[in-house]
Amino acid sequence: MNKPVGKHLLDIKSLEHQEIEMLLKRAEHWSEQKSPSGPLPLAGKFAVNLFFEPSTRTRFSFEVAQKKLGLNVLQFSAESSSVTKGETLYDTLKTLESMGVEAAVVRHRESRILEPLADRVNIRLINAGDGVNAHPTQFLLDVLTMKQHFGSLKGLQVAIIGDLRHSRVARSHLWGLPRLGADVMLSGPEQMIIDPQKEGVAYPERIRVLPVDEAIRRADVVMMLRIQLERHDGELFSSPEIYQRQYGLTLERAEQMKKEAVIMHPAPVNRGVEIADELVESEKSLILKQMENGVYTRMAVMERALGGMEIWQPYLQTVNM
Amino acid sequence: MNKPVGKHLLDIKSLEHQEIEMLLKRAEHWSEQKSPSGPLPLAGKFAVNLFFEPSTRTRFSFEVAQKKLGLNVLQFSAESSSVTKGETLYDTLKTLESMGVEAAVVRHRESRILEPLADRVNIRLINAGDGVNAHPTQFLLDVLTMKQHFGSLKGLQVAIIGDLRHSRVARSHLWGLPRLGADVMLSGPEQMIIDPQKEGVAYPERIRVLPVDEAIRRADVVMMLRIQLERHDGELFSSPEIYQRQYGLTLERAEQMKKEAVIMHPAPVNRGVEIADELVESEKSLILKQMENGVYTRMAVMERALGGMEIWQPYLQTVNM
Amino acid sequence: MNKPVGKHLLDIKSLEHQEIEMLLKRAEHWSEQKSPSGPLPLAGKFAVNLFFEPSTRTRFSFEVAQKKLGLNVLQFSAESSSVTKGETLYDTLKTLESMGVEAAVVRHRESRILEPLADRVNIRLINAGDGVNAHPTQFLLDVLTMKQHFGSLKGLQVAIIGDLRHSRVARSHLWGLPRLGADVMLSGPEQMIIDPQKEGVAYPERIRVLPVDEAIRRADVVMMLRIQLERHDGELFSSPEIYQRQYGLTLERAEQMKKEAVIMHPAPVNRGVEIADELVESEKSLILKQMENGVYTRMAVMERALGGMEIWQPYLQTVNM
Repeated sequence: MNKPVGKHLLDIKSLEHQEIEMLLKRAEHWSEQKSPSGPLPLAGKFAVNLFFEPSTRTRFSFEVAQKKLGLNVLQFSAESSSVTKGETLYDTLKTLESMGVEAAVVRHRESRILEPLADRVNIRLINAGDGVNAHPTQFLLDVLTMKQHFGSLKGLQVAIIGDLRHSRVARSHLWGLPRLGADVMLSGPEQMIIDPQKEGVAYPERIRVLPVDEAIRRADVVMMLRIQLERHDGELFSSPEIYQRQYGLTLERAEQMKKEAVIMHPAPVNRGVEIADELVESEKSLILKQMENGVYTRMAVMERALGGMEIWQPYLQTVNM
Repeated sequence: MNKPVGKHLLDIKSLEHQEIEMLLKRAEHWSEQKSPSGPLPLAGKFAVNLFFEPSTRTRFSFEVAQKKLGLNVLQFSAESSSVTKGETLYDTLKTLESMGVEAAVVRHRESRILEPLADRVNIRLINAGDGVNAHPTQFLLDVLTMKQHFGSLKGLQVAIIGDLRHSRVARSHLWGLPRLGADVMLSGPEQMIIDPQKEGVAYPERIRVLPVDEAIRRADVVMMLRIQLERHDGELFSSPEIYQRQYGLTLERAEQMKKEAVIMHPAPVNRGVEIADELVESEKSLILKQMENGVYTRMAVMERALGGMEIWQPYLQTVNM
Repeated sequence: MNKPVGKHLLDIKSLEHQEIEMLLKRAEHWSEQKSPSGPLPLAGKFAVNLFFEPSTRTRFSFEVAQKKLGLNVLQFSAESSSVTKGETLYDTLKTLESMGVEAAVVRHRESRILEPLADRVNIRLINAGDGVNAHPTQFLLDVLTMKQHFGSLKGLQVAIIGDLRHSRVARSHLWGLPRLGADVMLSGPEQMIIDPQKEGVAYPERIRVLPVDEAIRRADVVMMLRIQLERHDGELFSSPEIYQRQYGLTLERAEQMKKEAVIMHPAPVNRGVEIADELVESEKSLILKQMENGVYTRMAVMERALGGMEIWQPYLQTVNM
């Protein structure tokens, strides 16, 4: 088996600090340049998007990123494929690898499904969300958005509020944000809170559980998580209205936010549940900026997976460790 | 919000007469040239096709048009997306806009769903059929086909026959054909007829309701509408055979057509129901020509949405108002 | 109707021997060169993949081949199209042809569905598997794989084992392998065996039915067919375990294979049913090579359908009849 030139992206915790910084710098480059000038850097290569869970946002964000770089993109949805014939993910990946496909973006409802495959395939794996485990590109695009707004994450107070237990986004942030110098406050319904100690994160001392009103008052970033209405129905909270009153970012709570604080959300938003409708596109909100940055971040991630390492040389010198 | 360069296409009634003429001239240009020579005019840009109803013809026609112009195309089908998570069309459009997608082609079962969104998004909206309201690109390709065949629409007698009540195609023609100088005859089962007066069309005096045999005898264009067999089953007519005998274009009725008259249909055809099987590809039929013109028309529509207005300058001088 | 430049590919039996050789030579060319150097030979042209049955492998293999050659690819899946409105395949093909699409790759559960259409459409038809009838590109890629490994098919002993009755792959091989000089041994459960005499093949004297152990001992190529677990459940064999013991390529049986013999399978494999898990990627297995060759073979097939005949001139002189 040939050693792949590019690299898998399985989660945040297995990334070197330096790699995170380089990915962010490259994403910032795309944020400024929007699209390649001149010949497309990954033209003629193939990537596949394997989505075993429904998704608009992440799938399209990857597809735009891939096509901007010139990649040929194969789209795979679980319904119309041989997966209905019971093929394993490993065999699907080996099939695509044999056809010359060099990268696979995978979303799957099973946590850590990619880890045991990483050493067994040459095709580069990019985790686009696996169960409740990790969502590394969401972490990177969120951090890019924070850095653009605040300059640095050092000392930044980030409140993450909502269904933490079922959130791969939250888990990626618990691993990554403290390593970049931010402090994390967790808040939400008791049954949805997780214990940072048990998650085995890197800097548990930078993570606290707080009541929602206090977290919102202290935060520089109020990151509201999506309530999976389709999963909980009545089980974890009695109604969307009651959830909003108890844990949502209402207009009243938003008035308690610091003057310079911002609102973020991984989207799609349940308007009027996690966040009051009027706040979603308000001046305080970076939600649309997050979506824009998703494309630039995924361009950097695809380049890391496919483009060889020479493109990272200019960043190596400038990375501030 | 930046003012978009290109323009929405929501329906026919909101188009200036001059814009209709320019779109037709540009479509005719593509009808002659088939494909761009030299660099693709919209290369590097992104469009999305959002189809909330099944469609082969219109979706592929747009996709061919888009790819001929060099657009990157995202395909969205309602089943495999976050729409299953209850996201609104507005939020889907804002998401795509944030990612840098510049045009959205939308088919939806709800009438007038795009109108309230037009002022709220920067992404350019193109109506590919909304409920029973409008199907503007079908109107334009039909008119292009008539102009190619007859030279002008002035005084042209167009019979539109079938389920007028449920037809967005018919409604677009009721608005558009009389403005271009054609007279319209409507015919069909009593329960499927609409009252032009109540539709608020521009030139009600150019629209008449006639018995099917008389309409066919008088017409230059016999446009048969598709019976939605899947919607009516037995409710509005007792059987396909009886429908054909009463309102279909049978071989006997086709013999009553004027010598130079032609047959059109927005397709897909129920062969042997609206039209006798033998007539679909007969010499009198322009149905395949309509499909071909659909691509050229949609190329012009995509350019109008995305390409900036400078390409229309040469046509401005030649448009005959 | 204009005479098409390229050619349909409906099955193996209607191919001239010379055409098979040319396709194999062109596929071997792509096997060496991997991708076109310089401008893409089919850039700007359109092909459609019409899959009325689920498929990962064949659909992606065609898509990679098409995009490597520069084709614009339309993807059609039965679920989200006007086929739900009852349109016939003929009308779908005429529609796509009218739009300027030049080739249609079709998979369908009905045998010989393309034959009656071949003379009625200009769009070039490529059979990607029709019912139990034929799978010509699978035949070609298998033969390419055998030729690369053994140099020639003359005198090669090929055992085809499993559900022959429902296998379009087997039927294509029964027609094609003997014509290229190979001898075929058939084996499998009694209810799944077919009678070569009744199939009307070209060289019935080169086809024998043998017990599975004997076939495996004699074979140069052991080609295991997929058991359609989803179709048979309990009807034709009592359990996957019993099937494996009676007809599968177990480790014990693999030890009886000749030293130079190889394992093939059209895939996807039911690991542990037709073939022991450990054998699938063993040294004896050419299964991944088959998948790789699938792309090169389909590049040649797409060129034959679309590219004009001049590219075949260099091969005409070298073909050894």
